[in-house]
Amino acid sequence: MNSVPISHVGIAVKDLDQAIAAYASLLGRSGPDLIEDVPEQKVKVAMFSGAQPEDGGRVELLMGVAEDSPISKFVDRRGEGLHHLCVYVDDIEAKLGDLKAAGVRLIDEVPRIGAGGCRIAFVHPGGSHGVLIELEERRKPV
Amino acid sequence: MNSVPISHVGIAVKDLDQAIAAYASLLGRSGPDLIEDVPEQKVKVAMFSGAQPEDGGRVELLMGVAEDSPISKFVDRRGEGLHHLCVYVDDIEAKLGDLKAAGVRLIDEVPRIGAGGCRIAFVHPGGSHGVLIELEERRKPV
Repeated sequence: MNSVPISHVGIAVKDLDQAIAAYASLLGRSGPDLIEDVPEQKVKVAMFSGAQPEDGGRVELLMGVAEDSPISKFVDRRGEGLHHLCVYVDDIEAKLGDLKAAGVRLIDEVPRIGAGGCRIAFVHPGGSHGVLIELEERRKPV
Repeated sequence: MNSVPISHVGIAVKDLDQAIAAYASLLGRSGPDLIEDVPEQKVKVAMFSGAQPEDGGRVELLMGVAEDSPISKFVDRRGEGLHHLCVYVDDIEAKLGDLKAAGVRLIDEVPRIGAGGCRIAFVHPGGSHGVLIELEERRKPV
């Protein structure tokens, strides 16, 4: 089973096509492995993965598609750049319970379904030294 | 050979011991895999890796150990948080040549030796949508 700590890093950008070109060049790829609309977050996403997406360590480019998208607001306020860090956890409910018991401020107290059907939850940056953290439950081996 | 795009993510923190405790809890670890002083960068580093560090997808916590450390200056200016993204490249000299030819602004025009002896170079955030990028040459299979 994959054991790398990081599932992906989210980068907020203004123009997805330009960012795709820049990151394809940096990563030595012809293009991303996936481009996807996520209407409930009002974002369009491009993902650069390894051989298997579940290997982790992926680069996710995020563009807001509405003025009130969280990504558009982030870019308006802080400019383009690193937005969040998604790390793997084995049991997301247990982890959220532990963090809450330790007084860590959570954005999601219960898991929700993220891209690709995995279970995710966000932790407030105040609880993780200024970093917006997304927790993603590792898929169990089938 | 490992194929994940991300080597590691660097997080700038004020207090390394507190950050280690927070990230050990988030990642479900007893502690980091490595703690190291990097005097030439005036930083102290803690690294959380997967089963093998070269699998990538690692979390690097960085604390400045002098007022003029780049990390201390970053934290003074922007607060704690995501600092840089390190991605793998196959041939770092070829990549730097390509980026320079494409007009991308580089911090290091020639590679230097980073932590663990690998060859690295930094790309200016202006060339990568606001993200300070570190390039790390993938180790060749022996």
